[in-house]
Amino acid sequence: MDWTTYQPHPLLDLMFERVVDIPPELIWSAWTDEEHLKHWFTPKPWRTVECEIQLTPGGIFRTVMRSPEGQDFPSQGCILEVVPNSRLVWTNALEAGFRPSRLSSELPCDSFPFTAVILLEPHQVGTRYRALVKHRDEEGCKKHGAMGFHEGWGTALDQLVDYMKGLDPAARIP
Amino acid sequence: MDWTTYQPHPLLDLMFERVVDIPPELIWSAWTDEEHLKHWFTPKPWRTVECEIQLTPGGIFRTVMRSPEGQDFPSQGCILEVVPNSRLVWTNALEAGFRPSRLSSELPCDSFPFTAVILLEPHQVGTRYRALVKHRDEEGCKKHGAMGFHEGWGTALDQLVDYMKGLDPAARIP
Repeated sequence: MDWTTYQPHPLLDLMFERVVDIPPELIWSAWTDEEHLKHWFTPKPWRTVECEIQLTPGGIFRTVMRSPEGQDFPSQGCILEVVPNSRLVWTNALEAGFRPSRLSSELPCDSFPFTAVILLEPHQVGTRYRALVKHRDEEGCKKHGAMGFHEGWGTALDQLVDYMKGLDPAARIP
Repeated sequence: MDWTTYQPHPLLDLMFERVVDIPPELIWSAWTDEEHLKHWFTPKPWRTVECEIQLTPGGIFRTVMRSPEGQDFPSQGCILEVVPNSRLVWTNALEAGFRPSRLSSELPCDSFPFTAVILLEPHQVGTRYRALVKHRDEEGCKKHGAMGFHEGWGTALDQLVDYMKGLDPAARIP
């Protein structure tokens, strides 16, 4: 896919964009290293307690988020595109191995099918970060927006940047 | 995905396998050239009257099949993996551009979500041809089997081989 010219659909897509002051390589590492991801992926006081990533098309992208009350919310998707330091695409409409998903309406993240596209570009101060989420229909897009898409992805990105800056430089990239 | 070691799921997958006496390059051409595909894809007297293929992950895989009575059945999916002369993977669980699909229960091919994997390997007499179809659930797999999966894919492959053999050699590979 050529995402550089992609125009988000006004009723079906949500897009989060921000410039951050760490390089694309560090953001890529935060997004693709299973240990790193657990430290920032879920806005506190929620936590990500499990993470499994097979970084290849058809590979698994699985997380378990834990609420402050201790309830676990598993989520599983399938990696679609991997371009190191530049682009990561996955969807919950497929399971690992490209099998169509059985989404559970009881899980918040399964309540609408989506494909997420993380786009990283070098920028003079660090990285132009974009997170595009494509939904099946307007209902799913609205629901995701009402769940706090922009706040949630913004807080997670703040956590990502803080976490990566706080790491020993040798530990940042596996 | 490493499909060489993949074991079909007994309740969720259908697999068609046959050795044919034309090389993988000709089968690849038949599967990926929009004009070629229309000539063999649908068991006669059905016809494939439209075909659109963008041969890249995220690209469209769209056909329109016409019944003997003249009714049209459109079908749209998304390409997932392209390995020339070896492997083609697409799914109807996503539309072009990786957006989750709105499947219509009124269209036979949309009545169950699936991912199709065409695997080609050189063989002493030509090609070992495998078509693997992964379904979301047992219900979809049973339905597809009852629709005549094995007969349908067998007849289509016969048509493919006959069509490619009948072509002028210069026209076989675009």
